[in-house]
Amino acid sequence: MEIKELGEFKLIERLTKDIKPTNPSTIKGVGDDAAVLRYSDKEVLVSSHLFMEGIQFDLTYIDMKHLAYKCAMVAMTNIFAMNGQPCQIIVSIGVGKRINVTDLDQFYDGLKTACSKWNVDIVGGDTTSSYTGLSINITCIGESVKEDIVYRKGATPTDIICVSGDLGAAYMGLQILEREKTVYYQQVEEFNKKLTQAQKENDRGKLEALNNERAIIENFQPDFAGKEYLIDRQLKPEAPGEVLEQLRNANIRPTSMIDVSDGLASDLKHLCKESNVGCRIYEDKIPIDYQTAAACEEFNMNLTTAALNGGEDYELLFTIPISEHAKITSLKNIHQIGYVTESKLGEFLIARDGNEFQLTAQGWV
Amino acid sequence: MEIKELGEFKLIERLTKDIKPTNPSTIKGVGDDAAVLRYSDKEVLVSSHLFMEGIQFDLTYIDMKHLAYKCAMVAMTNIFAMNGQPCQIIVSIGVGKRINVTDLDQFYDGLKTACSKWNVDIVGGDTTSSYTGLSINITCIGESVKEDIVYRKGATPTDIICVSGDLGAAYMGLQILEREKTVYYQQVEEFNKKLTQAQKENDRGKLEALNNERAIIENFQPDFAGKEYLIDRQLKPEAPGEVLEQLRNANIRPTSMIDVSDGLASDLKHLCKESNVGCRIYEDKIPIDYQTAAACEEFNMNLTTAALNGGEDYELLFTIPISEHAKITSLKNIHQIGYVTESKLGEFLIARDGNEFQLTAQGWV
Repeated sequence: MEIKELGEFKLIERLTKDIKPTNPSTIKGVGDDAAVLRYSDKEVLVSSHLFMEGIQFDLTYIDMKHLAYKCAMVAMTNIFAMNGQPCQIIVSIGVGKRINVTDLDQFYDGLKTACSKWNVDIVGGDTTSSYTGLSINITCIGESVKEDIVYRKGATPTDIICVSGDLGAAYMGLQILEREKTVYYQQVEEFNKKLTQAQKENDRGKLEALNNERAIIENFQPDFAGKEYLIDRQLKPEAPGEVLEQLRNANIRPTSMIDVSDGLASDLKHLCKESNVGCRIYEDKIPIDYQTAAACEEFNMNLTTAALNGGEDYELLFTIPISEHAKITSLKNIHQIGYVTESKLGEFLIARDGNEFQLTAQGWV
Repeated sequence: MEIKELGEFKLIERLTKDIKPTNPSTIKGVGDDAAVLRYSDKEVLVSSHLFMEGIQFDLTYIDMKHLAYKCAMVAMTNIFAMNGQPCQIIVSIGVGKRINVTDLDQFYDGLKTACSKWNVDIVGGDTTSSYTGLSINITCIGESVKEDIVYRKGATPTDIICVSGDLGAAYMGLQILEREKTVYYQQVEEFNKKLTQAQKENDRGKLEALNNERAIIENFQPDFAGKEYLIDRQLKPEAPGEVLEQLRNANIRPTSMIDVSDGLASDLKHLCKESNVGCRIYEDKIPIDYQTAAACEEFNMNLTTAALNGGEDYELLFTIPISEHAKITSLKNIHQIGYVTESKLGEFLIARDGNEFQLTAQGWV
């Protein structure tokens, strides 16, 4: 069904009708001029993320449900990166004519799946049309008691630098998706050429053969064998809430923390800048999945560059006092990659061969 | 300067360097993974608005500073419509290649102007590139003590329906802007035709005369004489915070409230639905500025339709107990337009001639 058949108000009603807030901090969710929340004994954490079609996502290889799931997880990750608990999201979406009601149903389905995973309420939003691509903005609101909040500032020399999970996988997933997209469009282009030629020649036999070929192209299956983890990391990232649980259970309080979204190098530099410290990290300590390594080899790309600058890892990068060394070593899925130095010593990567390289950051421009 | 010359991180630094939070509820503003706020004895109000180029705004007739000002005012209006005080905004912006650093400076200038007017802090945001148009999302966070919050629900039969300011002016402002844009593009088109012809004929005299004409077109001044108020209402709307002050000073607490953004008819219907009541409003009571009336005559448009369905008024529509009648009558700039009825009696406009019309709502599709 097209959106205009339903109308704005019925659309919003349809999308939000079965949303039931479950957080005690949600007083009033969807349905008024603003959501009403109560955080009497907690600090409120708020973060906003904008996702633009063609920049942050490509509808050729992500469906609306996964897209919504990813956007919500990315937004929640920012709250986790303050050592907070996400509680609410507000979702703005600008949709072009290609998007129909079923697409939006799936989008909300993805949002709800992501939210139920971390007990987050959808408490509002804005829906508008778009002349151009799809735009999505997610604001995530969370909570933390004052003493628990971990800022980017707070790292001090000798602190151990840790990162959760592994890095570079989402980036390599993107490379694979881009390659398969190219393969697909090449097939379509070649097919269209052959079709034009056959139509020109009015060759019935060729045209019939092309009908079979069309069916094959329409059923195009991208080749993801042995790369499932990379595709998952790109299309279905998970917010790193379990890492915080691990740290709390081990009674470890990070001195500083940031999420790894722009890439390890860039985000570590942010953390160093805010803490006014330097760092030394070790190439051989950077956690990398074997699928990431295999893909880098296949694409003839530098593995460390993918891990340092790939981005979209949505892991946590944090520092802990050196006295916590023994405790952190026992935790699964958390890796010590280096240590904090004085600011004047700069920010360095120590390569496998002992050479030292200054860390450089990359942004979106 | 182009944005890519500066880079993402230096750009953000440049735009946010002189932002100093002044609200006691702002613990940490721009510069970490999330803003940190404290609302220990108040309820938190949160609302988000998405503005898409070509839908909510047209850069042909609004500059970046006014655009930012308007977006911020619209976002704040939602907090006022809950009888709250806006305290923080978070700004996401997706920018295409046409937008340069100076444009963004101006955008932030507009944001800061709007924010300083209502003592609101800019506490975060997201900046990304865009392949298509400009996208802006503003999340506004505000506060209210629990007892003061006014919801859309709460109206009861016999309540008086009030609206602040006047209606339909922003819509007529838009008509004028659209007309002047058309006039301008017609001139450009005619000029281009003449130019092509003169070039074809290689006619020096004509080409020289066209040079003068080009200068005239380049200095095109739209005709806004006598319509300044309408243009202002369209390009520089103000959030209706003073209306709340008036009500507080008069010790009047609305029973229900909503902002007039989609148009009086549509927003009144929302209010009735949420309150489970009906309404009767009177055509001759709807506040309309004389410039709005004059423009409707000029455009041969129905004045009441413009006031009922125009939208973008950013006024407050609210109900008060009938016992407050005397008090409200003494307040400037607040108009009693009708009264609340039982739900089964429906939602009606009583025309000047006594005829009754059912109210109908319009959305964005």
